[in-house]
Amino acid sequence: MLPRQLLRTATAGESGRHGIHPGHFLRVCFRSTCTLSMLVNVLWPVVPAAIALHFARPDLHVWIFSLNYIAMVPAANLLGFAGSELAKKLPRVLGILLETTLTSLVEIVLFMLLLHNDQDGSLIPVIQAAILGSILANLLLCLGLCLFCGGLRRNEQTFHEAVSEVGCGLLLVAGFGLLIPSAFSAALRNNNSDDSESISADVLAADTLTISRSTAVILLIAFLMYLFFNLHSHHSIFDDVLRFDETQDEDGERELQRAKLTMPECLLAIIIALAAVCMCAIFLVEEIDSIVALGVSDNFIGLILVPLVEKAAEHLTAIDEAWDNQINFALFHCLGPSIQTALLNAPLAVIVGWAIDKKMDLDFDLFMIVLLVLSILVVGNFLRDGKSNYLEGGQCVLVYVIIAVTTWYYP
Amino acid sequence: MLPRQLLRTATAGESGRHGIHPGHFLRVCFRSTCTLSMLVNVLWPVVPAAIALHFARPDLHVWIFSLNYIAMVPAANLLGFAGSELAKKLPRVLGILLETTLTSLVEIVLFMLLLHNDQDGSLIPVIQAAILGSILANLLLCLGLCLFCGGLRRNEQTFHEAVSEVGCGLLLVAGFGLLIPSAFSAALRNNNSDDSESISADVLAADTLTISRSTAVILLIAFLMYLFFNLHSHHSIFDDVLRFDETQDEDGERELQRAKLTMPECLLAIIIALAAVCMCAIFLVEEIDSIVALGVSDNFIGLILVPLVEKAAEHLTAIDEAWDNQINFALFHCLGPSIQTALLNAPLAVIVGWAIDKKMDLDFDLFMIVLLVLSILVVGNFLRDGKSNYLEGGQCVLVYVIIAVTTWYYP
Amino acid sequence: MLPRQLLRTATAGESGRHGIHPGHFLRVCFRSTCTLSMLVNVLWPVVPAAIALHFARPDLHVWIFSLNYIAMVPAANLLGFAGSELAKKLPRVLGILLETTLTSLVEIVLFMLLLHNDQDGSLIPVIQAAILGSILANLLLCLGLCLFCGGLRRNEQTFHEAVSEVGCGLLLVAGFGLLIPSAFSAALRNNNSDDSESISADVLAADTLTISRSTAVILLIAFLMYLFFNLHSHHSIFDDVLRFDETQDEDGERELQRAKLTMPECLLAIIIALAAVCMCAIFLVEEIDSIVALGVSDNFIGLILVPLVEKAAEHLTAIDEAWDNQINFALFHCLGPSIQTALLNAPLAVIVGWAIDKKMDLDFDLFMIVLLVLSILVVGNFLRDGKSNYLEGGQCVLVYVIIAVTTWYYP
Repeated sequence: MLPRQLLRTATAGESGRHGIHPGHFLRVCFRSTCTLSMLVNVLWPVVPAAIALHFARPDLHVWIFSLNYIAMVPAANLLGFAGSELAKKLPRVLGILLETTLTSLVEIVLFMLLLHNDQDGSLIPVIQAAILGSILANLLLCLGLCLFCGGLRRNEQTFHEAVSEVGCGLLLVAGFGLLIPSAFSAALRNNNSDDSESISADVLAADTLTISRSTAVILLIAFLMYLFFNLHSHHSIFDDVLRFDETQDEDGERELQRAKLTMPECLLAIIIALAAVCMCAIFLVEEIDSIVALGVSDNFIGLILVPLVEKAAEHLTAIDEAWDNQINFALFHCLGPSIQTALLNAPLAVIVGWAIDKKMDLDFDLFMIVLLVLSILVVGNFLRDGKSNYLEGGQCVLVYVIIAVTTWYYP
Repeated sequence: MLPRQLLRTATAGESGRHGIHPGHFLRVCFRSTCTLSMLVNVLWPVVPAAIALHFARPDLHVWIFSLNYIAMVPAANLLGFAGSELAKKLPRVLGILLETTLTSLVEIVLFMLLLHNDQDGSLIPVIQAAILGSILANLLLCLGLCLFCGGLRRNEQTFHEAVSEVGCGLLLVAGFGLLIPSAFSAALRNNNSDDSESISADVLAADTLTISRSTAVILLIAFLMYLFFNLHSHHSIFDDVLRFDETQDEDGERELQRAKLTMPECLLAIIIALAAVCMCAIFLVEEIDSIVALGVSDNFIGLILVPLVEKAAEHLTAIDEAWDNQINFALFHCLGPSIQTALLNAPLAVIVGWAIDKKMDLDFDLFMIVLLVLSILVVGNFLRDGKSNYLEGGQCVLVYVIIAVTTWYYP
Repeated sequence: MLPRQLLRTATAGESGRHGIHPGHFLRVCFRSTCTLSMLVNVLWPVVPAAIALHFARPDLHVWIFSLNYIAMVPAANLLGFAGSELAKKLPRVLGILLETTLTSLVEIVLFMLLLHNDQDGSLIPVIQAAILGSILANLLLCLGLCLFCGGLRRNEQTFHEAVSEVGCGLLLVAGFGLLIPSAFSAALRNNNSDDSESISADVLAADTLTISRSTAVILLIAFLMYLFFNLHSHHSIFDDVLRFDETQDEDGERELQRAKLTMPECLLAIIIALAAVCMCAIFLVEEIDSIVALGVSDNFIGLILVPLVEKAAEHLTAIDEAWDNQINFALFHCLGPSIQTALLNAPLAVIVGWAIDKKMDLDFDLFMIVLLVLSILVVGNFLRDGKSNYLEGGQCVLVYVIIAVTTWYYP
């Protein structure tokens, strides 16, 4: 959302080399941005194995699912790393747009694949669950781990008030807009059981679909306003905040001396990562039916499994930043993607579904809506005072565990 | 709620004239308090036309509804203007009480007319929707436009923390009290479908009515406490806040030199405005049945149409104030009437309904309750840091648009 | 939660005497910590009367219930007083653990008795209502009265931000965790009425029970983390806050010169109080069936009657502290027990129910869940600015009255 490149001088992104040097390229990509990301790169051998298995033994459904699930993590990690390297070399506005796109890319690819593979409407609930699950994982798990890990190393973490105010206020209003169609549908379905003269289920579904599509269009307008605000009007506030963080980075020296990629290397890395992400995602989505047949509920896949893998790379980066006392960066990497999921990815899924004539609506399950609103309120309450400690983070993570356990039983 | 007269010296309300001067009178009334209010006065010719049409062509239902709808705006605007002029000439406590009454008057008149015209309980949902719609319009539309318009002209608006803390805290607790009867009714109706030995719908409706009436009495006590607090105990804090705003007014000079009404002119203007408001309201309410017959749902009339017209004059004043950097005044004019709707107007409707033996209860629709609580939380979150920008305001307005679209389909 | 003993020098807890002196003992116990507590001691003659009546006239059900209900108040008061006297004589960590235990003891005893007496599952809803009612009474009634009474004597009360931030943030996340099983069950019960192929009520009940037990275990882990945080990591912040309050105490001089109990006297008082509390609780719980037969709904007993009596002694102490300008102490005594109810007492009830094979789950009534979440949000909103006045307190109390009236009609 708010890329580091803003804060660097023009030369900071320079590698001092030209063209593609295979040895350098591999070394820089492997080291990635931080220690946790580097550890993730150990998983790269799984990527070819997962792809190969899909073609060699298409009958091993669970194995294909598991391997591709794991393979998504290093591929998404490389995509994020190469994207941020490229963004540093571009003009400011282009750089922000690139990072914004890349942040949402894996999620959008997954939503599109789920939409495309959906035959009889059975994958629509998975997409809906994945929208909410992505926000839940960002807020409770990732942000909770950031506060917890960051809090373990120091008595109290303080962060800039603007981060939490802007982040949580916007997230709450985005969540509010997102759930209006569900409130409409739930209220009418409830009334239905009372009086017989009420509208039929078909009319209700059609109305909900129309409302969802209108809502999606309005949410996209809200996202454009948000993007315009970030690009043009108020970057100065954020810049101050993040520049301050930069100076706090306990890994700071290492970061400046870190070897960089050249422009062609960036593009090469993005192409490789994108190809790997797409293939793994395709094979993963194809196996969902077999996993559901095994007894794992589609809600669990949507609310817990999909968000965990699609965001894993970002989560690890955020936790590493929190550990290095760059708590404002870490919070941005939790709150920003959540806002983008609500204002960009979810509406896009609805609108693409509209275009290809799928009945993708925003009629979320009541249970998940309640979890979403409460999560936003809880996190907002914790962030509001601009301080955090490991207790606050730990409680968020424990609540996420309760949610995961409960969803396991949700049919 | 907190009238400007508090802040003026005794002479500021003086016109320097005596008796009634028709020319002056018309000129002062036309100029009103601000540019937007003046523009509204251009609609005055609609008032006689609307009244005349009702008697001349009682069969043109849609035209009568539309014209009277438009005619309400300048009439309510004059009522507000003349009321604030009169309040400046009265002793402080009387002035506050007068402004408090006038703020709620149009809404109470409409509620009473709806109650009076209700034959078979079909207008009760319209009143309930109008109660919640009035708060929603104040919070999301009017406050959103204030933050948006105010934010366009400056990088960031700051307002006094007391405004938001007192306003939002009280509004949340008022909304909480207001919705307890609905929670009672919704929870029992839900359980009903489960087990057969549960209470019957008639008993439930009777219990809900009793609880609504008790709640209304307790909310009125809460309102008296709130009024007492404003009148006696804590005016000093608000005075400081508002006096500060006064000095910030970018129209300030103009305001001081503005011609004032004399006492008899004030009374004359109030009488004229009151007569026009009442007539338009009567004719408007009579035509609701014809509009419903056209296919506009009564929820849309109650939640969107009625609140927009009844508050139009106040909203325009608030937006003008936000534009002139008097953001504290503007917030008061959004939050104050919302609190009065919840603590005064809604309980009054229930109690008057009790007196004239109508089954007016507080069993709101689940859908609207959810919208109300989330709106209060969203606005509270935005106001809490004492700063705002156009993005926050714009998001509130967009959510209001989503609500309006959704309500259009709500049967 | 955060006992005063932290703040006193080692000698402050000293009585200057040894052994047991009956006269001194009675006088010190009678005077208790504050004026309100002393007034409660006037009720001591009810204790033997209540116990005697149970054996003499077991047929007078309503009388036995009423007398034992009243008798609980002075017994619990003595338990709290003797406990805090003893805690002052113990090493710091032991003292905190003792006070934490005693705070929850009466509630846990009542829950265990209700669980034990439950034959056919009819007392389970009473325990569930008592869990939520205990938090509601602490937040709305007790905290409301503290703010109201404290606010009457001074224009504005200010308290330390950490109290409200830590208190409300943790309370919200605890409430969130507590209600996830209910959201699961309510959402599925709702869906059930729609499609016929959904899961049966039996499976749903079994799943809810499993989820409740998992949730209980995770909440206990959260409580241990919270206890560890208080014991080891962050006492310094709280200490500063409370030491500041100590100096503000308008009864301070009196407190320091107050006669103290000796160690054996403390133990004697605890034994007497514990015996009285247990006997009254046993007799009280035995009569619940007769009270329900009289037409008082079990929800009213659980949500209003049980919490009022079990917390009466603490509430009076908190109100006395607020009156004496020790508002931070008072808030701790409202927020601390609420967190303990959610994170310790409720999970304990579920786990003990598991051990003795009762179907104790966390499937709360929807109506009560809504009340709980809104109460936490309302109180959080009021506390957030670190200031309060009598209006905020009064509104909380009035909302509690509305809740009590509504619950009376709740079948």
